[in-house]
Amino acid sequence: MNHRTTALLAASVALAIGTLSLATHAQQAPKPETLIKSRQSAFQLVAWNSSRIKASLDGTYNREEVGRAANTIAAIANSGLGSLFPAGTEQGKGWHDTAVKPEWFKDSKRAAELTAEFAQEATELAKVASAGDAAAVKDRYAKLNKTCKACHDDFRAKD
Amino acid sequence: MNHRTTALLAASVALAIGTLSLATHAQQAPKPETLIKSRQSAFQLVAWNSSRIKASLDGTYNREEVGRAANTIAAIANSGLGSLFPAGTEQGKGWHDTAVKPEWFKDSKRAAELTAEFAQEATELAKVASAGDAAAVKDRYAKLNKTCKACHDDFRAKD
Repeated sequence: MNHRTTALLAASVALAIGTLSLATHAQQAPKPETLIKSRQSAFQLVAWNSSRIKASLDGTYNREEVGRAANTIAAIANSGLGSLFPAGTEQGKGWHDTAVKPEWFKDSKRAAELTAEFAQEATELAKVASAGDAAAVKDRYAKLNKTCKACHDDFRAKD
Repeated sequence: MNHRTTALLAASVALAIGTLSLATHAQQAPKPETLIKSRQSAFQLVAWNSSRIKASLDGTYNREEVGRAANTIAAIANSGLGSLFPAGTEQGKGWHDTAVKPEWFKDSKRAAELTAEFAQEATELAKVASAGDAAAVKDRYAKLNKTCKACHDDFRAKD
């Protein structure tokens, strides 16, 4: 095998590996549908856990139940939700058509701020929930709900 | 106001309060559709976070990403998922028709065991993820996946 053949072979192998790598990457990149499903699931789960906290605050306070629910909301809020809203997911169907307004994707600074506020309030709620003071939980729960509402008011399409 | 009128009034008030209480209770009890949506969302979110851990193990290891993903899976697994599978949700549609086999609701002992194993392995994975040793995470991630598979094999209808 001469140098030229060796060089060509090496180039072909490199190209093949590159193509394989691209193919693998393409395979791993989640589809928009999967990302939209995942973000809709995240907020459905936040809603479920929020309703458990509300039920406890409105009825008989269950510290363990509230603790687990608040911990789940905090974990989801801090999980890196921003990565579920990449370019290419402005429109599309997950479990249902996305309800996110196009403005969300245009104002990335405001989107990042609201996401951070949600995460921060969820973390604070989980802290007081583990301490077990129902009055403190009620106060923090109201603050968390304000961050939900702030985002829904501006960036969630009405049903 | 005589005694009879007072008694009737008291009875009416008691009845009204009772009705109100029942109405409030009925309003708070989640619908089967909501419970099924929530459990489907829980496992969609587990799948999303699992895929993030896998991507990190297969590619460039990102400790922060893996930590957040493992923490979210652990919070969901420990959130009290059993309450999303009450009687009355054996069949029905959440985001889609439930894929849970009827046997799940008949063998509550096995269901509780599998749920506990999933929660335990998810907790262990979150612990090693926070310590940042990729090899330990890979080992624990495989153990967690076994608990997913054990449940899917026996209790999840095939697509």
